[in-house]
Amino acid sequence: MSDPATVVSASPLGAGAAVLAFDVGGTDMKSALFDTTGAMIGLDRTATPVSGAGTADVVLAHVEDVAARFRHDFPDVHPAAVALIAPGIVDDERGIAVRAANLAWDRVPFRDLLTERLGLPASFSHDVRAAGDAEFRLGAARPYRDVVVLVIGTGVAAALFVNGRAHSGSGYAGEIGHSVIDPRGELCACGARGCLETVASAGAIARRYRAETSTHMPGAKEVLQRVRQGDPVASRIWDAALDALALSISQLAAVLAPDAVVIGGGLAQAGDALFLPLQERVDGLLSFHRRPVLLPALLGENAGLLGAALRARGAADLQ
Amino acid sequence: MSDPATVVSASPLGAGAAVLAFDVGGTDMKSALFDTTGAMIGLDRTATPVSGAGTADVVLAHVEDVAARFRHDFPDVHPAAVALIAPGIVDDERGIAVRAANLAWDRVPFRDLLTERLGLPASFSHDVRAAGDAEFRLGAARPYRDVVVLVIGTGVAAALFVNGRAHSGSGYAGEIGHSVIDPRGELCACGARGCLETVASAGAIARRYRAETSTHMPGAKEVLQRVRQGDPVASRIWDAALDALALSISQLAAVLAPDAVVIGGGLAQAGDALFLPLQERVDGLLSFHRRPVLLPALLGENAGLLGAALRARGAADLQ
Repeated sequence: MSDPATVVSASPLGAGAAVLAFDVGGTDMKSALFDTTGAMIGLDRTATPVSGAGTADVVLAHVEDVAARFRHDFPDVHPAAVALIAPGIVDDERGIAVRAANLAWDRVPFRDLLTERLGLPASFSHDVRAAGDAEFRLGAARPYRDVVVLVIGTGVAAALFVNGRAHSGSGYAGEIGHSVIDPRGELCACGARGCLETVASAGAIARRYRAETSTHMPGAKEVLQRVRQGDPVASRIWDAALDALALSISQLAAVLAPDAVVIGGGLAQAGDALFLPLQERVDGLLSFHRRPVLLPALLGENAGLLGAALRARGAADLQ
Repeated sequence: MSDPATVVSASPLGAGAAVLAFDVGGTDMKSALFDTTGAMIGLDRTATPVSGAGTADVVLAHVEDVAARFRHDFPDVHPAAVALIAPGIVDDERGIAVRAANLAWDRVPFRDLLTERLGLPASFSHDVRAAGDAEFRLGAARPYRDVVVLVIGTGVAAALFVNGRAHSGSGYAGEIGHSVIDPRGELCACGARGCLETVASAGAIARRYRAETSTHMPGAKEVLQRVRQGDPVASRIWDAALDALALSISQLAAVLAPDAVVIGGGLAQAGDALFLPLQERVDGLLSFHRRPVLLPALLGENAGLLGAALRARGAADLQ
């Protein structure tokens, strides 16, 4: 854990209850303590303690451990609630992890388990919806009421806001990464064929480049560097990703008509190299439709923790 | 106009204010009077009085004329409000017809014009959203909160219900017929390429069959008959329509995760010949997703008038 004095950082969260926030990812698990001014005064990052069928227990044990360390390091800060967020199919309303491909859990009632373990009001919800909430309430999507927040990293997922309200579909909405865009496309890890995620995630861009070139482990960032250097394989794979993303966004425009599509996650780091050709392709696919503005996410890699903090404050307010 | 005595028909509308309802389509215009029991006691159907830039005026003149005839024929029924519905881009909240491909109007404030002409509280809204409202409140979609009502006729359009509330996106949502499913597909009348509607509407099925066979004017119904007779061209066109519809519905499942997709319009008349292979194809495209149940619309060709009646009663309640 970092030295407490070094991790105090201003956040857009604002004043409210002090809360604990945990973000379990497929690779990393992040933990934070927010004080009553909204500052993030503790931050801990560790490899997600994946442990087969015991993963949920090990994650909860880590949560207890970190909470105890925060109590020790920040004795004057008394968290009023806790929130944990995770990927997969999450029933936010009931606080249950239905399933998650990489985390080997099945119908774990995390919200109630958190309250049991920490003695605090708790929230358990979906990582991308929580990060989307943060962008919607504190970040790039604030001026809009109909918004899709698209997170493009290892996979692709979205948080939907319809008429100013989050839509989760009992945990099944927003799975745009598993929207089929080519029924004759590549088999996806989810079992379907031709999902957006097989072509357009940062993970897919890297994987496809490696498969075609037998190159050692470049990430999407390196593939984009090779596009700039004129590498034809990199260019073809990057263009296919842009085409697929543009197609999916144009379909959102036709069906949901969002005012804005906010894009975050690793791929959004590409900046103009992503946003300019993507906006051009989306515009080229549309006619009379409402054209969404494409915006980079503002809150960076801690959007999930901020979203979790918002949920925790919501849980505190319900007491 | 039919003899009044012959058109009294029970409706699922139920008791409430007596109202006037008008449904302007690209081809036909239907007019109805509902009494306080919810029975439809007057029904008039005529060709839509399309008249270039004067179409809005001619439609309003027809509305006044029919309202006068209803007053004469049913002197004891006193409508408390009026609603008009139409296709195109409609701003339901402001009661404005933004535009409509076949009706040559541009930003017509129908709601206010109806009140001016008839001296009644008025509503102006979108035909498919109104028909969808009727299916949602009175018909096949009643048991569900997250629903897409898909109307497949000359074109394809949808009414979306998210968490029990209609979503119109200022008039731009639900245009699933103009969701691009194949960027290299046929040019659509809307100006985009490869819209769902170019392959999967009843209109497209008939048009594509005529184009390939130089046959004289069969409709989608006749194409389906030829499928049953083993006609390979008809089969290929019908299969392409089913594939495209299944793809679009699978995309809805991934992104919006509706509990149910209710299908109405001319093509839904095909019954099991549509619903069974469509459900099979949708199932084949999905993996972990929430699988929507596909249901035929219940209210038939008067769903639009019933939806208009619901809107008119809403307008009466606001007084």
